[in-house]
Amino acid sequence: MNTFGRYFRCTSFGESHGKALGVVIDGCPPGIELSESDLMPFIERRRPGKSALSTPRIESDIPEILSGVFEGRTTGMPVAVLVYNRGHISGDYDSLKDLFRPGHADFTYQHRYGRRDFRGGGRSSGRETVSRVLAGGVAMKFLEKYGIFVSAEIIEIHGERDPVRFEDEILSAKAAGDSVGGIVEIRASGCPVGLGSPVFGKLDSEIASAMMSVGSVKGVEIGDGFEASKKFGSENNDEMDSSGFLSNHAGGILGGISTGEDIVVRIAVKPTPSVEKEQKTVDTAGDERVISVGGRHDPCIVPRVVVVAECMLALVLADALIGSRCLMRDCE
Amino acid sequence: MNTFGRYFRCTSFGESHGKALGVVIDGCPPGIELSESDLMPFIERRRPGKSALSTPRIESDIPEILSGVFEGRTTGMPVAVLVYNRGHISGDYDSLKDLFRPGHADFTYQHRYGRRDFRGGGRSSGRETVSRVLAGGVAMKFLEKYGIFVSAEIIEIHGERDPVRFEDEILSAKAAGDSVGGIVEIRASGCPVGLGSPVFGKLDSEIASAMMSVGSVKGVEIGDGFEASKKFGSENNDEMDSSGFLSNHAGGILGGISTGEDIVVRIAVKPTPSVEKEQKTVDTAGDERVISVGGRHDPCIVPRVVVVAECMLALVLADALIGSRCLMRDCE
Amino acid sequence: MNTFGRYFRCTSFGESHGKALGVVIDGCPPGIELSESDLMPFIERRRPGKSALSTPRIESDIPEILSGVFEGRTTGMPVAVLVYNRGHISGDYDSLKDLFRPGHADFTYQHRYGRRDFRGGGRSSGRETVSRVLAGGVAMKFLEKYGIFVSAEIIEIHGERDPVRFEDEILSAKAAGDSVGGIVEIRASGCPVGLGSPVFGKLDSEIASAMMSVGSVKGVEIGDGFEASKKFGSENNDEMDSSGFLSNHAGGILGGISTGEDIVVRIAVKPTPSVEKEQKTVDTAGDERVISVGGRHDPCIVPRVVVVAECMLALVLADALIGSRCLMRDCE
Amino acid sequence: MNTFGRYFRCTSFGESHGKALGVVIDGCPPGIELSESDLMPFIERRRPGKSALSTPRIESDIPEILSGVFEGRTTGMPVAVLVYNRGHISGDYDSLKDLFRPGHADFTYQHRYGRRDFRGGGRSSGRETVSRVLAGGVAMKFLEKYGIFVSAEIIEIHGERDPVRFEDEILSAKAAGDSVGGIVEIRASGCPVGLGSPVFGKLDSEIASAMMSVGSVKGVEIGDGFEASKKFGSENNDEMDSSGFLSNHAGGILGGISTGEDIVVRIAVKPTPSVEKEQKTVDTAGDERVISVGGRHDPCIVPRVVVVAECMLALVLADALIGSRCLMRDCE
Repeated sequence: MNTFGRYFRCTSFGESHGKALGVVIDGCPPGIELSESDLMPFIERRRPGKSALSTPRIESDIPEILSGVFEGRTTGMPVAVLVYNRGHISGDYDSLKDLFRPGHADFTYQHRYGRRDFRGGGRSSGRETVSRVLAGGVAMKFLEKYGIFVSAEIIEIHGERDPVRFEDEILSAKAAGDSVGGIVEIRASGCPVGLGSPVFGKLDSEIASAMMSVGSVKGVEIGDGFEASKKFGSENNDEMDSSGFLSNHAGGILGGISTGEDIVVRIAVKPTPSVEKEQKTVDTAGDERVISVGGRHDPCIVPRVVVVAECMLALVLADALIGSRCLMRDCE
Repeated sequence: MNTFGRYFRCTSFGESHGKALGVVIDGCPPGIELSESDLMPFIERRRPGKSALSTPRIESDIPEILSGVFEGRTTGMPVAVLVYNRGHISGDYDSLKDLFRPGHADFTYQHRYGRRDFRGGGRSSGRETVSRVLAGGVAMKFLEKYGIFVSAEIIEIHGERDPVRFEDEILSAKAAGDSVGGIVEIRASGCPVGLGSPVFGKLDSEIASAMMSVGSVKGVEIGDGFEASKKFGSENNDEMDSSGFLSNHAGGILGGISTGEDIVVRIAVKPTPSVEKEQKTVDTAGDERVISVGGRHDPCIVPRVVVVAECMLALVLADALIGSRCLMRDCE
Repeated sequence: MNTFGRYFRCTSFGESHGKALGVVIDGCPPGIELSESDLMPFIERRRPGKSALSTPRIESDIPEILSGVFEGRTTGMPVAVLVYNRGHISGDYDSLKDLFRPGHADFTYQHRYGRRDFRGGGRSSGRETVSRVLAGGVAMKFLEKYGIFVSAEIIEIHGERDPVRFEDEILSAKAAGDSVGGIVEIRASGCPVGLGSPVFGKLDSEIASAMMSVGSVKGVEIGDGFEASKKFGSENNDEMDSSGFLSNHAGGILGGISTGEDIVVRIAVKPTPSVEKEQKTVDTAGDERVISVGGRHDPCIVPRVVVVAECMLALVLADALIGSRCLMRDCE
Repeated sequence: MNTFGRYFRCTSFGESHGKALGVVIDGCPPGIELSESDLMPFIERRRPGKSALSTPRIESDIPEILSGVFEGRTTGMPVAVLVYNRGHISGDYDSLKDLFRPGHADFTYQHRYGRRDFRGGGRSSGRETVSRVLAGGVAMKFLEKYGIFVSAEIIEIHGERDPVRFEDEILSAKAAGDSVGGIVEIRASGCPVGLGSPVFGKLDSEIASAMMSVGSVKGVEIGDGFEASKKFGSENNDEMDSSGFLSNHAGGILGGISTGEDIVVRIAVKPTPSVEKEQKTVDTAGDERVISVGGRHDPCIVPRVVVVAECMLALVLADALIGSRCLMRDCE
């Protein structure tokens, strides 16, 4: 459940306020140049505290590669990378230990496991995405070798599509002790035709699974997505001529397999559930309480989700690329 | 790639115009009453040719249980069920064997595998969903025992939300030699708190994967989904009092784990790619061609997707329910 | 649990006296020539009733390929093959339905599942190996393309190593209402260097798992096996010169990865547990009983295990061969 | 490939002379008391340098739990544990970097991956078993809760079965610049009836896979093992009366499922391949060379395999015990 992928298998571990977070990548191909400095940009991009738009919590994360790299290149053995947790004060969270914060996993974790690490959300914290960007950073190094590049951008904040107004939306929510969400679009270019498998291993199925596994993501669409459901077949089909596809409504995937066109994905990110505004909840004893979640919280998590979403797409593509090598087309 | 699930593992096989389609369910609990007649309603509901709204192709499908049932109950051994293909005329498809139909998987399968069964789309045909409803039918029998029920309905056709006008939308598309899509909402009631696992085994992640694995599905959302991205955190959070949750914007899932509220999912279904309207394409030699896909095709696949979507949710829930038993909460 | 393999994944189903037994192979490469007649020799070789040495039960098994083959070649889609059960009379087994036969799985299945198909052992019957030889037959067709060949022979029966005396050992056991076991040696030639993965995916680990999954196998050894434990390191190591390895004590595997030498495996097969001699047992109510298992049983299962063991090694090698393609050695 | 288990999934990482070795356990039940001091005894027992019988290399290993434990108990989240490598001098191994040591994985790793971490055998080193005893230590804490205990002992060294003479066998091999192997017997008591699954998830199949995944293990047998192949069926069957089984030739497993009797396993351990005696080999350029592997090597690895073998059996049983909970016997 904490492993993603079939061939490029990433196993994530760690809690928000535990000793360390990290990932083990099993199935990483040999020969890829890799060092901690390759991973720092990913850590940096997801880091909070860079502006008024995000939590001032300082995460001075330094990735440490423990295995699988020798003389500067991967060896084909498991690549373990971790980041020790620093700079948090667990005392911040003591007041919340008996409360189920609305919109958070407190209630469900407590019921499923009978206990939970309540410090900063423990395993359900957005901090778990540190593991994802470490793995995604390695995946991107691998994909680059094959000319595949992934990027993402915010296309909507709180329903607003004009990027000039994104910051205002966030700041006014913050001022009101509230939070906002938005939509991120992720694209991959350079994908060869043929990534993905029929039926349950469809590339779009893997992408949907990957994106929806990111906390706060509530919707995923490929290509024209929900808009496609409102069109005629003749409009939605991507015609072809000898130069290739004439449009890309499908978002680069047909029958679950990549077409060679850009892969296009959009995700809906919910507003951060931690808000200062008072809300009704219950405590672990079942008693009614009123909660105001103060402290260092992002009024909008969307800017930090961007790099995480890129990394998740990179993980799916790295997996599919290796999988496509297993086909043994030389049997005939 | 043709197996879905970790505990209630369904392996699908078969092509549109091959000898048979079927599924093997490994991990089906023992003791469930099961016979072919339990599966007929699911086969019936996905069957085409019931009205002017769907293809007149007659599929007289009779499920046959080959294993895993003894004296009317499952034994815990693999349940294999199949349906022999009848009533198709392969000759219908010979004219298409060298053409890549726009919006279909012909192009991508050919490139990935170097060959393909072109008769009726082969493995990429919607007919593969026979396997899914067979498995889903068994899953529903199992879920019923635990008071979990799944249902789905069409909530939009071609952008139209008034059910009274759904049929018109489909028939006018058909008259124009075109097709339309729509949106289906799927709900599960009676789920206990605690289904689903953190990080990559999140219930919403599994649901997204399941739904997006259905051909023609281009988007998935949970609870308020894309709408959630347009709201304030204080609006989107589901508050609680001693009676439980006061709303269900989350769609019954927090932190990837079920809350006990109804699970709510919506999927976007694209318009059927097979349209009579002429479209540009290429053939396997790369030459430009014009194609009109006649024959027995649904002008709108949405009504037939309803039962398939229900079955996919049932498969996810059956899997998660068994998974929740592995927790061994009695260790303390 | 009924699936074997990571890449060439075989899912087995069916009971001794159910409707049918079969296998679904997911991950079978495209382009392999395949028809039912390719599988008949494997079915024939495991068939009982060919001589006085085995049970006279007549199994007129005819394999039927249901999917994954088009125009005489595999398509890369799941290959489902089955055999309908014929020629058995369930009535034979009614007297045993409440008894736990010594050395059989009756007791353990009953406790694990709370119920069992008692007819002929149900799923625990040796008849389940029909699925294995169907899958193994396909694997061998695939391996042949790459010059890999698997064969096996009996090297010991009831402790006797002279093949001339094997038949006598079996017949005298039969005459005494008893049974005997033996040892089978399986070899693969033509394996390239590099099959198998470090640590938990070692080729010898997979082989041990495969062989021990065959009912009645109680021991597995690779190369010199248990004898290796009695030698000096200097004797057991395989030295090399420029022509290659100078010996093959290792049985073709070092560090879990194939060396290019013949892979050599031996398995210990226990005597058939069904014997006419009276034995103490209990019934499902816990009452003490005396049992004599008459009927159509092999006095020695070893001759029929030969083809099954070959097929299991073929499955491991097919899997490892595909896995070796996932390495993407071109990253540098 | 570096992950073991289906439910209690252990992912191992690290090289002999890399930064650290460790394991991530995904699926560890919540509520188990766990601290580093619980793992120290396992680390200690596999530690070399304790006597003249093993390598004087000093491994001052200190386990560090990074995640999955809160307030002294497991939380159900992944338990990551590592040990930093200390006390090794990589320079020791430079002379061997171009040589394929006989009986080692140097040759096969080089061919499979195109590169390898040659320092101390890298990933193929016996030092990888640090990860296994860390995981096994956690598994044992879990099994204890259910009354299951695992132990192992050496029953043969270099063909000698008298324990009094084991030390002599090892010391005389050492004096001759050579090495010896032996046989270890592992037992589990307290197992409930019903662990293990039919066909490919048989408990003995999992045990065989686990044991054979330990470097230097060349054979595995269950119960009477190879001896069973030399007996009559009537001798080998375990009869029952109302008090239970009257013997345990089967080694506690019937039909792949535990009987409730002690589980009995024996493994054949080959002599350490590193010997001072000169041996023929080739270098990476293919040139013939003579090698004498000096340095800190165990003349007999068997004493250190004991705890590793115990841990592997504990991992299999932990997995099977959780798996047995997934059966949902309450469906009827």
